[in-house]
Amino acid sequence: MDRTRLALNQYTVKPWSLREAIDGCIRHGIPSIAPWRDKLAAHGIAAAARDLRAAGLRVSSLCRGGFFPAPSAGERQARIDDNRRALDEAAAIGAPVLVLVPGPAEGASLAGARAMIADGIAALLPHAQACNVRLAIEPLHPMMIAERSVITSLGEANDLCASFASPHVGVIADVYHIFWDYRVEAEIARAGTTIAGFHLSDWRTPSGDLTSNRAMIGDGCIEIAGLARAVLAAGFTGDIEIEILNAALWAGDQELTLRTAVERYTALSA
Amino acid sequence: MDRTRLALNQYTVKPWSLREAIDGCIRHGIPSIAPWRDKLAAHGIAAAARDLRAAGLRVSSLCRGGFFPAPSAGERQARIDDNRRALDEAAAIGAPVLVLVPGPAEGASLAGARAMIADGIAALLPHAQACNVRLAIEPLHPMMIAERSVITSLGEANDLCASFASPHVGVIADVYHIFWDYRVEAEIARAGTTIAGFHLSDWRTPSGDLTSNRAMIGDGCIEIAGLARAVLAAGFTGDIEIEILNAALWAGDQELTLRTAVERYTALSA
Repeated sequence: MDRTRLALNQYTVKPWSLREAIDGCIRHGIPSIAPWRDKLAAHGIAAAARDLRAAGLRVSSLCRGGFFPAPSAGERQARIDDNRRALDEAAAIGAPVLVLVPGPAEGASLAGARAMIADGIAALLPHAQACNVRLAIEPLHPMMIAERSVITSLGEANDLCASFASPHVGVIADVYHIFWDYRVEAEIARAGTTIAGFHLSDWRTPSGDLTSNRAMIGDGCIEIAGLARAVLAAGFTGDIEIEILNAALWAGDQELTLRTAVERYTALSA
Repeated sequence: MDRTRLALNQYTVKPWSLREAIDGCIRHGIPSIAPWRDKLAAHGIAAAARDLRAAGLRVSSLCRGGFFPAPSAGERQARIDDNRRALDEAAAIGAPVLVLVPGPAEGASLAGARAMIADGIAALLPHAQACNVRLAIEPLHPMMIAERSVITSLGEANDLCASFASPHVGVIADVYHIFWDYRVEAEIARAGTTIAGFHLSDWRTPSGDLTSNRAMIGDGCIEIAGLARAVLAAGFTGDIEIEILNAALWAGDQELTLRTAVERYTALSA
């Protein structure tokens, strides 16, 4: 696949600081990066903006906002306020996209939680427009429904996205979260240019913590090349993120992880 | 919920033999049972048919056939032959339904595996008609795609079922496998009287083995009563199976598991 569109999602090498991740991108010829907010805070927002620019890196997205459902109106407002700060941070570092992990039900019904997510995005949208940052709804694998996201399929994310009909709302197509769906290619086509991010890892049946068991590209059963063709055919023109959240890899050699991921990405034909 | 429609799926109390499960049903006033083939084989088919009848139990289904995808044509034929034997066993014990766990891709593409499943059901259908046993396609939770089933949503199972348009092909609605889907109620309504089984357990985020981590009814986040109302409104008239596959419960007191499950079922309002 096209190396000029490659982006490193920073949690692929989670033990690294933002400085180390920037240096890793430079060493491996990766032209784009997706920082996470905790790493950004540790580095300082202004310093991050300066250092990313100095390194000549594009920013593909900022990870992450979202987590809208909460038991009380006050807590829901606090989440929205925090998402506004995330939009400010995205704008400051030149990220065109804020990834939204929608959040679990937190005691609400699924329908209630889904309504809170729609309300949260609606409340954020004016600030997203003002910042010129796109809110990107990421559907997560259904196994994460009780802990991360009640939005569990690309079809559902597409419906929610379509309800806003705004250039500042889009969806994330992460192969790990959506590949199992027999309608995935149809939903990718339907998403079209609302696709605001395309994330790569691979699937092996997880054991233990379900959130950090993603496989290295090529080590699992996801038909990545076919999904990539579908996403490109849909009109997605952004950078393509390697995002491999894997606790075993985090415990290992980050340089090896990064080298392997870049090799596997490069070998994909799409 | 209606105690006269309650069925015990035998793997809820997996350590028990068929004799022990029959006796458990009698003790707890459960009028229906779904045996598994390994337990049936251990008991003997003819003896099972006699003992189930003598106990006055209905049989809700036989678990399980399926697993159609295989690398070679010979192995695929062997799977179909085994499914024919499962149909014979179902007919012998008076089971109106053979549950089909579709199977993983086994090295094929997802599309290829899905085609093998459709071909397998088509090959079985004449024998199902001859036995007057319904083949019931069970969509499994997407986290099981690499090990158990490439059919991952009720929508997909409905589409496959509709392609046969036969009274001898239906679908299984198991709350554990389908509750996460924002379209689940619409797909239950679409399934209508093709629903050949309704299975109850509950969801807590699994760790360890994903196939035997289902929660006791009421201990998780599935909105069971609402799903039950939808299934009954769709026209399902069969028995409702408690099917809690849980390794921790299997290691505990089976009598307690059964008593608790019956209490939780009875307390559901649908």
